[in-house]
Amino acid sequence: MDVLHVGLIGCGTVGSGVARTLLDHGGRLAARVGSAVRLVRLCDRHRDTIKRLRIPRGLWTRDPRQIVRDPTIQVVIELIGGIQPAKALITEALRRRKHVVTANKALLAEHGQELFELAQRHGVELLFEAAVAGGIPIIKTLREGLVANNVDTILGIVNGTSNYILTQMAQRQLAFRPALAEAQQHGYAERDPSLDVNGYDAAHKLAILTLLAFGRSVQLTDIHIEGIQHVEPMDIQYAAAFGYVIKPLAIAKRTHRSLEVRVHPTLLSHEHLLANVQGVYNAIYVHGDLIGGQLFYGRGAGQRPTASAVVADVAELAQRQATGAMQKPPLWMLHRHELRLRPMAEIASRYYLRFSVIDRPGVLAQIAGILGRHHISISSVSQKERRQARTVPVVILTHEARERDVRRALTAIDRLPVIRRHTVALRTEAPAEDH
Amino acid sequence: MDVLHVGLIGCGTVGSGVARTLLDHGGRLAARVGSAVRLVRLCDRHRDTIKRLRIPRGLWTRDPRQIVRDPTIQVVIELIGGIQPAKALITEALRRRKHVVTANKALLAEHGQELFELAQRHGVELLFEAAVAGGIPIIKTLREGLVANNVDTILGIVNGTSNYILTQMAQRQLAFRPALAEAQQHGYAERDPSLDVNGYDAAHKLAILTLLAFGRSVQLTDIHIEGIQHVEPMDIQYAAAFGYVIKPLAIAKRTHRSLEVRVHPTLLSHEHLLANVQGVYNAIYVHGDLIGGQLFYGRGAGQRPTASAVVADVAELAQRQATGAMQKPPLWMLHRHELRLRPMAEIASRYYLRFSVIDRPGVLAQIAGILGRHHISISSVSQKERRQARTVPVVILTHEARERDVRRALTAIDRLPVIRRHTVALRTEAPAEDH
Repeated sequence: MDVLHVGLIGCGTVGSGVARTLLDHGGRLAARVGSAVRLVRLCDRHRDTIKRLRIPRGLWTRDPRQIVRDPTIQVVIELIGGIQPAKALITEALRRRKHVVTANKALLAEHGQELFELAQRHGVELLFEAAVAGGIPIIKTLREGLVANNVDTILGIVNGTSNYILTQMAQRQLAFRPALAEAQQHGYAERDPSLDVNGYDAAHKLAILTLLAFGRSVQLTDIHIEGIQHVEPMDIQYAAAFGYVIKPLAIAKRTHRSLEVRVHPTLLSHEHLLANVQGVYNAIYVHGDLIGGQLFYGRGAGQRPTASAVVADVAELAQRQATGAMQKPPLWMLHRHELRLRPMAEIASRYYLRFSVIDRPGVLAQIAGILGRHHISISSVSQKERRQARTVPVVILTHEARERDVRRALTAIDRLPVIRRHTVALRTEAPAEDH
Repeated sequence: MDVLHVGLIGCGTVGSGVARTLLDHGGRLAARVGSAVRLVRLCDRHRDTIKRLRIPRGLWTRDPRQIVRDPTIQVVIELIGGIQPAKALITEALRRRKHVVTANKALLAEHGQELFELAQRHGVELLFEAAVAGGIPIIKTLREGLVANNVDTILGIVNGTSNYILTQMAQRQLAFRPALAEAQQHGYAERDPSLDVNGYDAAHKLAILTLLAFGRSVQLTDIHIEGIQHVEPMDIQYAAAFGYVIKPLAIAKRTHRSLEVRVHPTLLSHEHLLANVQGVYNAIYVHGDLIGGQLFYGRGAGQRPTASAVVADVAELAQRQATGAMQKPPLWMLHRHELRLRPMAEIASRYYLRFSVIDRPGVLAQIAGILGRHHISISSVSQKERRQARTVPVVILTHEARERDVRRALTAIDRLPVIRRHTVALRTEAPAEDH
């Protein structure tokens, strides 16, 4: 039986899970794949790691170059994350004709194009199932399972931390801060949670999904990104009263020759397929011309689900080695450059608008008047009686409107003397339907 | 660019969809796969087909042997269904070292083992993504995406017709017959719907999933199969009152070294992930040691979703041809024969029991007494007052009980003079949870 020699860089949470899976379940993997996988080197800054993982001391190194430069190693697993030194290590590994398996979404989102081309040039693979949605095999699904389709829509809850926080805010009427603190206590949020809650982690993943589904490379600066940190419990409650939930969504949609890519908290009808994805769970809805709508649901992070994805990539390399074919055709390379990126101002949505107004007769008429002049028509209004406060919320759900019009209208409205705070505007997503 | 020559046998609904996809979207497929796919021969009994599909007349043949014996054809797509002549044609194609792509679940469920071994021996592939859950790439997912996992549970709604009928019965208080008639009107049920509603179609699919997920070949006779044809509107309503929905479930579960495989209408708590899978949609829940629970949801039948799966298999062959590797290692071949099939009598579940009794004092005490003597404890009871009818339903939801005990108790109860009809017993499935 062939043996694939693997080196692992980075033995944090996910790395430990991968090491344990390869060491403990090597047998079952070999039986399924027809080729053995041997972990021959393991790099971590901390010597304790090898004790903790009970692995032979000889495998351990503190220097990652001992892995990327080892001529016997055929596959390098990079799990240190971040841009550098990960990028330099992966680059060197690819140049030395080693396959690379990574979970590094930030690196792929920012430098994927360059690294994929490098792999291609050197006849090796750069695989990344673990970079999006943890254990859900969405990369393989888009790249192979749905290869016959023209995808037109991807809607993803791809950041478990944000979804956990909004779920807690909704179910237990918590404010953002305490919900975040709780996520941190449970280990669902990093000590520095900014990338998760500000939408950038989701944007990294969206960039990767967009490349796969639409063959279009997008930069982070091409993506409209709003985090969940400004969602207030009040907005969740008003949304619920209108029959909606607020979910952290990554959205990529193709219409004709243009593509919109955006990440923001989004109102979904409670009947929407994604509305019931709770807690740290991830889910990705894909709509294609043949399949209609499909949904993939599971744990998007955590040691074992992510290890499942990393090991699946390694298994694929082992399997292809056993059959003598090492390079996968560059499915994702079909760059439809004709796909124009649609400017955010052009998108259309129904909007949830929360105005903070002085409770005075005629205010609603003023607001409605400005909306009307910008071609925005009102679907529902909620204004609750409040006697104590002089500032009251007025919430409006619009019919479909253009982002440009909404922005212009809100600029005008926020200048009114009766408006006390910046108006909150959230977009909605229509029920997923087959067409 | 390499060209893969494909012959298609059977141009019904799915076959036409495959032909159209290959003819119309050959270009996008070639770009994604790095290898072209050319449909060079097409077999159908009816000459009209080629007119309808607007394909060159020279491609058409009425004789399927002209496809399996054509030395220029590398891949045979079999879409005629049924055991014969499909089996003979596939056998001949494999013997002539042609890859085969099929959607034929009945054939694979009954003769898969033999055909897979034949393919293996001749160094070719037998692919079957379309055989289970239409456009959902569940076969590839189990075989590759989740390869690192030990799966312990599969719960699937894999027959769209049954799910559509039960959904209509629940949402519109229809009886089974009119709901079936409606499914037929909408083209969701065959003129002879028996395989769908009696659970055998789901059992065929379960046999395939079981082979992939557990490496265990099971016969249809190993599977406990109950259809949905005896579910009454009344049962759906009582279940709803207890907080449950009734879904047509295919279940495979591993516990220690034993495996249970069964197909039957099942009560699911309305919070269960599968409870909201409505209409013709399919969904498969998979629980594995690394991933925890995952759910895959989409259209399980129909021309275009099924064509999506068939073409994905063809694309995989084209891709592997381009990279020079033609045989996939037999992932599914890991037969863990040590997995004992658990007899149905040994399974445990909470049960929904509907007794048809004469409305007379002391009846409930009699029933409860017999249940108690068989170690079955009662969780809830519903007995509505009925003045007109002399026979009234008494519905009991039990705590977890053994199937053997339930059967014995019901045999005893059904002998009571106060019992007017055979007692209805349905099993429940506990909420999917991670452990």
